[in-house]
Amino acid sequence: MEKKALVFSIVVNLLLVVHILVGGEWASLLSWSSRAAAEAEAVADIGCSGHGRAYLDGLLGDGNEPVCECNTCYRGPHCSHFIPNCTANADGGDPLFLEPFWIQHSTSSALVVSGWHRMSYSYNDDTWISQQLETLIRKLHAFVGNAVTRNRYIVFGAGSTQILNAAAYALSLDNTSSRSPIRVVASVPYYTPYKLQVEYFNSERFKFEGDAYTWRNRSDGGASTNVIEFVTSPNNPDGQLNKAIVDGPNVKTIYDRAYYWPHFTPIPAPADEDLMVFTLSKLTGHAGSRFGWAVIKDEAVFNRMITHMQLNSIGVSRDTQLRAFKLLKTVLEEGTEIFDFAYRTMEIRWERLVATLSLSNRFSLQKFNPQYCLFYNKIRDFSPAYAWVKCEREEDKNCYAVLKAANIIGRQGNLFGSEDHYVRLSLVRSQDDFDILIHRLQKLVLEELEASLREG
Amino acid sequence: MEKKALVFSIVVNLLLVVHILVGGEWASLLSWSSRAAAEAEAVADIGCSGHGRAYLDGLLGDGNEPVCECNTCYRGPHCSHFIPNCTANADGGDPLFLEPFWIQHSTSSALVVSGWHRMSYSYNDDTWISQQLETLIRKLHAFVGNAVTRNRYIVFGAGSTQILNAAAYALSLDNTSSRSPIRVVASVPYYTPYKLQVEYFNSERFKFEGDAYTWRNRSDGGASTNVIEFVTSPNNPDGQLNKAIVDGPNVKTIYDRAYYWPHFTPIPAPADEDLMVFTLSKLTGHAGSRFGWAVIKDEAVFNRMITHMQLNSIGVSRDTQLRAFKLLKTVLEEGTEIFDFAYRTMEIRWERLVATLSLSNRFSLQKFNPQYCLFYNKIRDFSPAYAWVKCEREEDKNCYAVLKAANIIGRQGNLFGSEDHYVRLSLVRSQDDFDILIHRLQKLVLEELEASLREG
Repeated sequence: MEKKALVFSIVVNLLLVVHILVGGEWASLLSWSSRAAAEAEAVADIGCSGHGRAYLDGLLGDGNEPVCECNTCYRGPHCSHFIPNCTANADGGDPLFLEPFWIQHSTSSALVVSGWHRMSYSYNDDTWISQQLETLIRKLHAFVGNAVTRNRYIVFGAGSTQILNAAAYALSLDNTSSRSPIRVVASVPYYTPYKLQVEYFNSERFKFEGDAYTWRNRSDGGASTNVIEFVTSPNNPDGQLNKAIVDGPNVKTIYDRAYYWPHFTPIPAPADEDLMVFTLSKLTGHAGSRFGWAVIKDEAVFNRMITHMQLNSIGVSRDTQLRAFKLLKTVLEEGTEIFDFAYRTMEIRWERLVATLSLSNRFSLQKFNPQYCLFYNKIRDFSPAYAWVKCEREEDKNCYAVLKAANIIGRQGNLFGSEDHYVRLSLVRSQDDFDILIHRLQKLVLEELEASLREG
Repeated sequence: MEKKALVFSIVVNLLLVVHILVGGEWASLLSWSSRAAAEAEAVADIGCSGHGRAYLDGLLGDGNEPVCECNTCYRGPHCSHFIPNCTANADGGDPLFLEPFWIQHSTSSALVVSGWHRMSYSYNDDTWISQQLETLIRKLHAFVGNAVTRNRYIVFGAGSTQILNAAAYALSLDNTSSRSPIRVVASVPYYTPYKLQVEYFNSERFKFEGDAYTWRNRSDGGASTNVIEFVTSPNNPDGQLNKAIVDGPNVKTIYDRAYYWPHFTPIPAPADEDLMVFTLSKLTGHAGSRFGWAVIKDEAVFNRMITHMQLNSIGVSRDTQLRAFKLLKTVLEEGTEIFDFAYRTMEIRWERLVATLSLSNRFSLQKFNPQYCLFYNKIRDFSPAYAWVKCEREEDKNCYAVLKAANIIGRQGNLFGSEDHYVRLSLVRSQDDFDILIHRLQKLVLEELEASLREG
């Protein structure tokens, strides 16, 4: 009897030792970080039915504890109540389609920040740019093959937003030969903030001039005027791999490459323009982190952008740089995983949208020609971040209003310099938002089909 | 024998269970966060002799593991080698004097960020401002009594740097009645970036006009001109509780309250100006986080600053806001501790500096009149962030060069709009930097005394 008990006891001993050594492999070594880790895990464990999340700095309940923040069409303490007639939000480019990837990779992407982490203005080399992060970014571009970074300078900014403005300032400072402000153009349809920024910051050095095609075709849009052209490629809103429209010795180009990832487009060749802008937002989906970068050929332009960032915000938050570092490290460790996940997700969404609108004569979508993708070594289709929808009927002059009446919020064509026959619908949002969008569109198309059957 | 073995085995069993339940109190519950926690603790454990730190995103050694990043005057793998003739850096305002506080409070200030934390552009209320963080900031001002925030708007920015510029834009947009740009002034000696920002951003709406006193005394500096005055209080560089110099119906004032904390000054009353700017940098010492805020009375000005932040960077990184949230939560949890620590540290530094230069006729310091401090409920002295040193000898026209020859780097008076008889010395840097500064100054004063003994 005692022998049996002894054997049992020894087995329990061994199991407990194994538990400590393996189960708590890391955990048993922790000291100052364990309270914060437990807090973060407790918040992550709050159940929001897959239609919301709780955050450390989130909404608080009665007990002063974080509670679920629900997706647009869900309510209730666990986001389990669907609101049947809620509005489909397809407005902003909130890239939450990537959130499931990060939930799946929670261990490799978690980050612990000590209270004394990087309090200084500068890194060890007296810059405000993390060399480790810069190295990761170069590695990532080399792995994806979407940009040449060898012998290029890299500057960081608070998302592409801050970078684009810094680039416009930096290039306009070249404009010393002329007393008149440099003209800023972009081909229609263009990303609105180019216009809004130039007009708001209202520098004496630049003026927004509108559509690049119109500018090129104007008889007096002569070669002597200094011009900055913003080229978004793939374009926002229509996903096309745009190229510069205006050229000449006095033209400078800013290539906004935010969407130049396998998620959204074939990668025909590494981009190699003078000034290219990228952002974490459309790569990993962390729009909230506000992290972007520019890849620059000319040292003088680089130095001016550094000055801009210095005067604007003394560079990018070191906390943000640490987060970007951790996220990009995970991206690289996982090989092609994030790209496969993002491409598959966007491809399925685009196919569902195409299938839905293919039955309609009232609404049309932009068309793409498949291209060879160096990243996947095959010819592939586009899987764009946005649908650029046209209301084909003459009377549907305000396509935004047509969709709004059907409980869908898009973004008006005129905000992109286009006619209001066009509306942009965002396809990068949460799965909930996308599902509701498709549902509303199906209803709209069904009504169209029913009406044509009645008439026909 | 077997009985003894059984008792022993059961005791071991119990010990192991206790170890799991108590020793690993939190730790045994952890899953996805434990790898990151172990990584962070391993890096924190790298020994840098108190003269450096290793960081997760830091310099890498041969084994591709983070290594020590040493303070200015130290070298070696563990920062244990002092460089005897190294330069005393008293230039920038890197607030590392607060680092020991955060190392002491490592448990309460640690932060765990999940890979999917706040990927969206916006918080649950569709803004990019964390309501939880805003609430903490209001609580903190109420606790310290240094600013009125009730019925005030609060906007966040990337450090005071971005906020100051946003404020200048927002106030200049009021200037619709006049076609001429609004004049920006600040009383000498002033914080350089006011000038640099206004000149760099070069908006058609504002122009930097220089010294506020000179402007007020100019016969044509009439009441009809629109003016923005920057008032830094306590002032950078000289620590004085400045008040606005220019007044009139067309004058707007931006109060830079970066240093209005018990660390540096008595708090005679809660500040209650129309537009006040604060920054985490000089409160908790996290300059690298780039987080600041403005407290604003007028809703229209607030809305314009929101627009500015939107177009400049779509607000402040959500990662930074989470970090600020955690740090300020710790500050509030610890009562007066951080203020006591900061005041004590700065007071000792100022006393050491005063004692050192009191023997000198060649160098003088700014003077303060002690004031009643509502936070400490007593009359107390100033304990400024910077020394505003004057070289008293006529021939020492370039005080910066005089100190540089003695192996001390300060900041030239002309950068603050002053004469070069003045130099600013930073007192907020690491203890190492401060100790070396005092050592170099002592040497300089000793040489002066020896010379006067020889002459006398």
